[in-house]
Amino acid sequence: MQLVTEENITDLAVERWGTARDPRTAELLTALVRHLHDFAREVRLTEAEWMAAVQWLTRAGQISDAKREEFILASDVLGLSMLVVQMNHRLDPRATPATVLGPFHVEGSPELGYGADMSQGLPGTPLFVSGVVTDLDGAPVPGAVLDVWQADNEGLYESQHADVDEARLRAKYRTREDGSYCLRTVAPLGYTIPMDGPVGELITQTAISHFRPAHVHFLLDVPGYEPLITHLFQEGAQYLDSDVVFGTKAELVVRFEQREPGETPDGGTSAEPWLEARYDFVLQPTA
Amino acid sequence: MQLVTEENITDLAVERWGTARDPRTAELLTALVRHLHDFAREVRLTEAEWMAAVQWLTRAGQISDAKREEFILASDVLGLSMLVVQMNHRLDPRATPATVLGPFHVEGSPELGYGADMSQGLPGTPLFVSGVVTDLDGAPVPGAVLDVWQADNEGLYESQHADVDEARLRAKYRTREDGSYCLRTVAPLGYTIPMDGPVGELITQTAISHFRPAHVHFLLDVPGYEPLITHLFQEGAQYLDSDVVFGTKAELVVRFEQREPGETPDGGTSAEPWLEARYDFVLQPTA
Repeated sequence: MQLVTEENITDLAVERWGTARDPRTAELLTALVRHLHDFAREVRLTEAEWMAAVQWLTRAGQISDAKREEFILASDVLGLSMLVVQMNHRLDPRATPATVLGPFHVEGSPELGYGADMSQGLPGTPLFVSGVVTDLDGAPVPGAVLDVWQADNEGLYESQHADVDEARLRAKYRTREDGSYCLRTVAPLGYTIPMDGPVGELITQTAISHFRPAHVHFLLDVPGYEPLITHLFQEGAQYLDSDVVFGTKAELVVRFEQREPGETPDGGTSAEPWLEARYDFVLQPTA
Repeated sequence: MQLVTEENITDLAVERWGTARDPRTAELLTALVRHLHDFAREVRLTEAEWMAAVQWLTRAGQISDAKREEFILASDVLGLSMLVVQMNHRLDPRATPATVLGPFHVEGSPELGYGADMSQGLPGTPLFVSGVVTDLDGAPVPGAVLDVWQADNEGLYESQHADVDEARLRAKYRTREDGSYCLRTVAPLGYTIPMDGPVGELITQTAISHFRPAHVHFLLDVPGYEPLITHLFQEGAQYLDSDVVFGTKAELVVRFEQREPGETPDGGTSAEPWLEARYDFVLQPTA
């Protein structure tokens, strides 16, 4: 006859979940039980707080859909996403560091040519980003695909627009033989994370800034190299010091140089002022 | 310029969530961050596992509705609910111990008279439960309301039936001047928790039994006493040793005596064999 007490409940639960047939599943579930119970014991969680947590989790699931993942957002603002990224990408110090993927990446972006414009006439200051992709020793990586995406001037990604059914501010670019790439877009802006859900409810109870600094997302999944998920941030942008998802790294901050109308890096010309950013991505070979 | 690293991310996140204006909220959120990060570090959570967790949480939210709360179920099977119950009800050893509320309590049950039948002709063996409600010293508590509910012979509670719109296997009984109560129902059966959702997915990966032993729920919220949420379990019932929600306590196991047709505790008679359980509830005065 099982005698459950406040003292033995954790051991009983660990013993049960340790019966998971897959050893890694057993490891994860028993560790989850221990840490969850440790948390509840440390704060001596009340029943009202427990019920508030249940309801918060339920609301977070129910506000999520194909265009929104509140639990990713929760993980981001609690610093968990960035911790997981870093534990799983302990890269050579010479390599470009990783940062969070975020919930807005869309598969299957169209491939555009060298210097082509992924902004398709959307409002904003023209921005050219160019550089080379190399290995740790600086040797160029030809044929590397850069999957690029960013928010528009309303701070929204394509997947957040209900009415958009074509690629919007996202594209793939391929490096040339010398490892060089060049893309054209519009300068990104800082934006707020969605604040109308359970995550926003929590943040409004704190002094936490709910903004992200201006950035462009990059994903480089090149055969023979560790996949790299990262951002480039605009030097001097607001919120660099307080990125709500903890995604900023000094190595990823790039100067956006002001350029006068004239010749542009794609070989064309611009009739209006434009911005130029140069960044060389350094990939780490797979072990 | 914030330099986020694997080493400092936890401190940064704790510092931020510590800005919650309410001190208890700050305590809860900073402890949550620490324990969540400790868990992720200990198991070195992979990105695929992190994504699986995000998707599991989302599914749990989305399968929940007015009749089902998957996060309560998750908390139950992880032993968290029973831990929280016990931390918040450190009762005198003489008092009737508390156990989990479960997700099936319905407010506003009809009040029935002494010995009245809450089973309304549903199939099952008649069961009378009677006894007294007393304080720690054995003095009777008159006028105490016992809010009683249980599952039917399919293992389902009223709230799990889409088509039931009247009280089903639930009622309130009030103690008489001498503290005595008497209720009539049908003998409860063991049942499985819902296994068609995310919690079931996890349990099927383990050797954990997904059943609860036969029990009747009681809630006694009597002015001047600590609210008591508890069950009575049938002695000898299957799954007493393996209650999937860890709710069993030796003090709550009661013999259901077999009785021949004849006089019943409500003063009437039964033409068929019936069961009799006697249990005295002992309430702890509020401090």
